[in-house]
Amino acid sequence: MPLLHEVLEHNAHWVQERNRAVTKVPQKKVIIFTCMDTRLVDFLEPALGLRRGDAQMIKNAGNTLVDAGGGVVRSLVVAIHALGCEEIFVIGHRDCGMAQLDKEALRIKMLESGVPEEAINALHPTLGEWLGGFHDPLGNVQHVVQLLRDNPLIPKRVPVHGLMFDPSSGVLQVLVDGYPALPAGAAQP
Amino acid sequence: MPLLHEVLEHNAHWVQERNRAVTKVPQKKVIIFTCMDTRLVDFLEPALGLRRGDAQMIKNAGNTLVDAGGGVVRSLVVAIHALGCEEIFVIGHRDCGMAQLDKEALRIKMLESGVPEEAINALHPTLGEWLGGFHDPLGNVQHVVQLLRDNPLIPKRVPVHGLMFDPSSGVLQVLVDGYPALPAGAAQP
Repeated sequence: MPLLHEVLEHNAHWVQERNRAVTKVPQKKVIIFTCMDTRLVDFLEPALGLRRGDAQMIKNAGNTLVDAGGGVVRSLVVAIHALGCEEIFVIGHRDCGMAQLDKEALRIKMLESGVPEEAINALHPTLGEWLGGFHDPLGNVQHVVQLLRDNPLIPKRVPVHGLMFDPSSGVLQVLVDGYPALPAGAAQP
Repeated sequence: MPLLHEVLEHNAHWVQERNRAVTKVPQKKVIIFTCMDTRLVDFLEPALGLRRGDAQMIKNAGNTLVDAGGGVVRSLVVAIHALGCEEIFVIGHRDCGMAQLDKEALRIKMLESGVPEEAINALHPTLGEWLGGFHDPLGNVQHVVQLLRDNPLIPKRVPVHGLMFDPSSGVLQVLVDGYPALPAGAAQP
């Protein structure tokens, strides 16, 4: 059965069993920015003890922040200023595909898939820089936390934590505790 | 207890109970692009019958695609060409916050939070256009499907489906079935 049909058949059965109303304002007032990795699906949220209605989730390849005016910052601005989020968790993970990206192999696969060479060459500044890969997942988290901390669109009162997740064991490790960075006199949540 | 500490305490207990190895290549070879909304957390995946290891997930505010060369397309390129994904599901949802965004109220909240007015005025082209809100969540899904369908970095063999999710009932509805758009002669999955 094609995947789309399989998913629809599952959904028809599933909705008969669940029907709960939840508000769109996250109860724990937190926004998680993490990776699209499949090992985090149905795993990171329970590992954090977060359930439906608790948190907003932003996900992309490698929890990378290439463009300071791009979709990640846009989403954070909405989460903070329109939905009342008061903390940001940047969560990278070990064994991240973006840390092992072979750009030349990727270029070859793109060409084999019929992607026109001129479309690849048009990427700014280059395919490799456009992809925004990194060597060190821990360093990437620390870098993203710093970029957000320095971004004028993110209020200074919002703690930005940096964490590393193990996609096999589910262990979470703190790289940057955002609380001490709060202005003196600000109350911890 | 501060949220960061609460999350860490939960995690320490949780990891003792689970430790499963899963490959980083998604078994169902699908990438989901959906919204950061908190009502979808711990709800959309089970509604689709997707479990850990099945799919990649990209999430932002309103599953919007403002920048054709931005993080969403970067993530899709990695998912398809480096991780073997063969289908894209764009999933919007009813009652989306991005469809009801009051830009003037948001500007006032940003100023009240200490965001410098010049940082807001520096957004291109304007705060409203930068945010990329929309009036019609269904129309947004159809627009994003078309943008991806027309993007030369996404191979023509990759079906791009458009779906709408009800964040209360969990009902899924097809807006665009990507299969018939496959080139004549291509096998359905």
